[in-house]
Order: sequence, then C-alpha cells, then structure tokens
Amino acid sequence: MDQVRVLSPATVANVVCGFDCLGFALEGPADNMLLSKTSAQDITIIHRDNFGLSTDPTRNVAGVALQAFMDAAGVDHGFELEITKQIMPGSGIGSSSASACGAVVAANLLTGEPFSAHELIELAMAGEAVASGARHADNLAPCILGGFTVVRSAEPLDVIRIESPELYAIVVHPQIEVRTADARTILPQEVPLRSAIKNWSNLAALIAGLYRGDMDLISRCLVDEIVEPARQHLIPLFREVRSAAMSAGSLGGGISGSGPSIFMLANSREAAERVEQAMRDIYSGTDIIFKSYVSRIARDGVRQAE
Amino acid sequence: MDQVRVLSPATVANVVCGFDCLGFALEGPADNMLLSKTSAQDITIIHRDNFGLSTDPTRNVAGVALQAFMDAAGVDHGFELEITKQIMPGSGIGSSSASACGAVVAANLLTGEPFSAHELIELAMAGEAVASGARHADNLAPCILGGFTVVRSAEPLDVIRIESPELYAIVVHPQIEVRTADARTILPQEVPLRSAIKNWSNLAALIAGLYRGDMDLISRCLVDEIVEPARQHLIPLFREVRSAAMSAGSLGGGISGSGPSIFMLANSREAAERVEQAMRDIYSGTDIIFKSYVSRIARDGVRQAE
Repeated sequence: MDQVRVLSPATVANVVCGFDCLGFALEGPADNMLLSKTSAQDITIIHRDNFGLSTDPTRNVAGVALQAFMDAAGVDHGFELEITKQIMPGSGIGSSSASACGAVVAANLLTGEPFSAHELIELAMAGEAVASGARHADNLAPCILGGFTVVRSAEPLDVIRIESPELYAIVVHPQIEVRTADARTILPQEVPLRSAIKNWSNLAALIAGLYRGDMDLISRCLVDEIVEPARQHLIPLFREVRSAAMSAGSLGGGISGSGPSIFMLANSREAAERVEQAMRDIYSGTDIIFKSYVSRIARDGVRQAE
Repeated sequence: MDQVRVLSPATVANVVCGFDCLGFALEGPADNMLLSKTSAQDITIIHRDNFGLSTDPTRNVAGVALQAFMDAAGVDHGFELEITKQIMPGSGIGSSSASACGAVVAANLLTGEPFSAHELIELAMAGEAVASGARHADNLAPCILGGFTVVRSAEPLDVIRIESPELYAIVVHPQIEVRTADARTILPQEVPLRSAIKNWSNLAALIAGLYRGDMDLISRCLVDEIVEPARQHLIPLFREVRSAAMSAGSLGGGISGSGPSIFMLANSREAAERVEQAMRDIYSGTDIIFKSYVSRIARDGVRQAE
C-alpha cells in the first residue's frame, strides 16, 4: 500500500467538570487526508482548502507530527500529504489535533503499523505543540482512541478510553476569535477547596454515569463552577445558548476546548436536532456568523476512508 | 419477625484523590447489632462493649438514626437495640456511621423494608450529624451500599455505587486521637488550580480503573497532593508506614477518613498480609499502641447475621 486516505475527526476537550482531562470524539466534521509514500526522504504538504495554513512541513502541525513519526520509525522514504480540512482552525473543536492525528495514523497504516495508539498520541503531541505551544493531549487522545477519554497525565502520557452509551453532541461555532493563550490567562490561579471538591465529585460521578449508561446521572454531573464562570463572557450569548439547549432537552454541556464553540449533549439524534435548532435560533437573531453540527459521539477515532 | 441481627461494617472515606467523595466498605471489623420490636413507643439502647458510649437515644448515633426512621415510617411500636461495637470510636474507619447504618437497616428489615437504600442513607445521616456535627454521607454510603461509592452531593443526597474488581484493604489504627474538627481546620481554604486539575484527573482515571479492573491504573491514580500533605503530620510515622506498605506490594493508600487510621490497598489476600506485616513492623519498634485489620472490599454493606 502506497497511499491511504483517512478521516480525522473533530473533538471536544474540557468537557464541563473534566477541565484539562476529559474529551470526546465526534464522527464529523472530519478532515480528509490523503497520504502517499514518495521516494524522496522529505515531506510535501498540499492543502485542498482555503484556510491558508502553512505548507512548510516544519511549521505545519501535520508536517511536524509526520516528521516525528518518520524520526521514530526510521522510514527510508518520504510522504506527500494532501489535506482537505473541514474543521476550521480556531473553532475550539480540535482542528490542529485532527491534523496531527490524521497524519500519524495514516503514516502508521502505510508502514505496517509499527506504533500503538498510545505511541501515536505521543508522536502527534509534537505537532500539537506547534499550534498551542504546550504538550497536551486533551484533543489528541479522543481523536485517536475515539469515544470519551481521560488524560490522567500528559507527561508521562497516560490516557484511558472510557466506555459510554450512545450519545449525541451538538456543536455551535460562533465565528469570533478566542486565543487559547487569552483563555488560559483568564483562569484563576487558585480555587476554593470547596469548589474543587464539588468539581471532582461531579467528575467522578460523570465517569461512573458514562460506564453505567445512566443519562440522568450524566446530566446531573455536567456542572462546572470553576472554569466556565471565568470564561463564559468570552463567548457571545453563551448563557442564552446553553439555556435554550437545556430547555430543548439537552443533557448539559459547556464551552468546547477554550471556545468559542459551545457543545451540548443529547441522548438521541431527534433530541440533538431539537437542541441544535434551539441553539441556532439564539444566534439567528444576531449578526454573529455561526456554524452548527450534530454528530454521534464517535466509537472510533481517526478512521480509514473508503 | 420481631428481632433481627445485623453486622454493620467499617468503612474508609476520603480515598486518596477522592477526598470528600470516594469511600469503600470493609467486610470487617463490623459492629454486631441486635434490634427487637417492643410494645412501648420508645427506644432502649444497650451496649455490650466497653466504649462508654451514651445509652440516651437522643445522644446516641444509633438512637438518633432509629428515631429518624421511626418518625419517617410512622411505626406503632418501639425498639430495643443491643450493640456490640467492634469498630473503635475515633479510629477513622466509620465507627459512628456503622452505628447509624446498622440501626436503620435493621429497623427496615423488621418493618417490611419501607425504605430504599438511598432513603436509608438519608435517615442515617441524622445520626451521623450527632457524631460529626455535619451532614455528610462519605462513610454512610459505602456502609449501606457496599463496595466503592461516590457521594456526588450530600444535599440533596446523590450517591453512586462503583463497580470494582476483587481488592483487599489493610487498615492500621495507631491509637492516638485525631479530632475530625482539627483535621478540617488544617486544610487549605484555597488550592492551586493546577493541583486541583491533577487531583480530578487522577480521580476520573481511578473510577475508570475500578470499572475496568485495571490494577496498574488503580495504583497509578492513588496520589493526593492536596489533603495528605496537610494532614500527614497528624499521624505518627505516616510516611514510613506507607512507604513500607508500598515496598511490600501495596497498590497505594493513604489516610482513612480524617485519621488516625492508615489504609492501603492490595490485589490479593496474600499481598495484603505481606503489606499488613510491613506496616506492623514500623509501629512494633515504637511505644505506639495499634491494631491492624485485613479485609476484602465488601460487595455488600450492612448485612443480616445468621
């Protein structure tokens, strides 16, 4: 096999009470990436989209991840990577992670799968660091493993795939810019112990709710009194959008990653479509440009396309 | 049925990274409680032990819990409760919770089981409040439900039973006094967000480890950088005892409740017995009076005795 096409999905990190820890993968949107072996020992990047990302492999997230793969695998050839991004950079649903993960999973498929999923997350982290300036795996882990994932530790990497019932996510992306660095500096350095306890009690119960498939419990746990109060003003009409989603039957949700996308969960596709409409209705009355998506939580991460 | 005998087990709360949230039940030690219906509409408490606890039902944990049960159930008779406590008060392994839970579970059995397990925890909370001055369910939940439990919220009560693999606990009780109130005031009011994130990441992964039965993962998650550093000096030779336990093959552990007992986990009875010996060896060289216990994590909470 000299060529492989993969779909690398959007992901949601910082799932409510699971800040810096809990994430999940969507089925779509997903970046479409065609990787080919080349005889020259270098990397060529071609973009089939209009996001204006660098094609310099040392400055492109997918390129850096691919180089990390090549260094670790010691391959005797090069790669050409043709990317049709569907996940808008800066949307807060793991656009750079999708680039990094898609590149290393495709390279793994083309070279006899020398690396485990865990090792691929490590390699993709090199690419992610180009985009965010930090080694973190909150979007990489669900992008590669699928489903819900807990990142117990990024250094050393320790990620766990969490069982979950069939769930749907609604993502609404208001097209304003939130810089991840700004979203970081806005966070409190210290938090009341009482708030921290409440948060980890909710998170512990949420993990149990996912394993048990208990939708009521999952819904009760989707509470965040630490990060969301500090960040919600970065996102226009955040409270109104979430409130409309809850009234339409959502289980709960919050800020996706560091925003600006808002995600909500629902227990069926029908409920998810009602929730999406309610969220769209809030932004439709404004001049905010936005996109929305409904997707099942993906069982798998990056997948080979037909 | 006019009489029932129950065994009400010791419990461990504040399980490492699960401070104020995660607890589990032991099979033993357990208080032995014989409850009988009486014609008079009052409560008589008889102690068959030497702990000198009050027999005034308005000042006795079991008595207050029993009264809460009678008020809620509207029974037309009274109770005589004969208690042989095996769990030393003040040991930090849920002595007062065992009294409260044993009383309400026994009363439930004698009156056609009008209440659910969840409701019994609510009723037992009235008794627990006499001992601790606060409504909390950290020991009550595992005492009634067995296994590992998460208290997501005490008010309103929301507790979840967590699946877990076969695990053993070793408890060593150095017989010094630690007042729960003192152990509370010693805690920081605020904690670094970074530490809180680390803690909830460990707790989320620990819950996953329990569901998956992954002993290595459970072991990696048993880390607490928030409460333990503040409290460990209250317990003589805490670090030495834990270090000896780890060297002997324990998965991890920490302070039980607010101390002074130390608990450690192990993945087999043989490992647990080695760990117990290593822990005993530390205190044996001192003038500290201590007791130790090895028990499987109980599948059930309060149980009817033959």
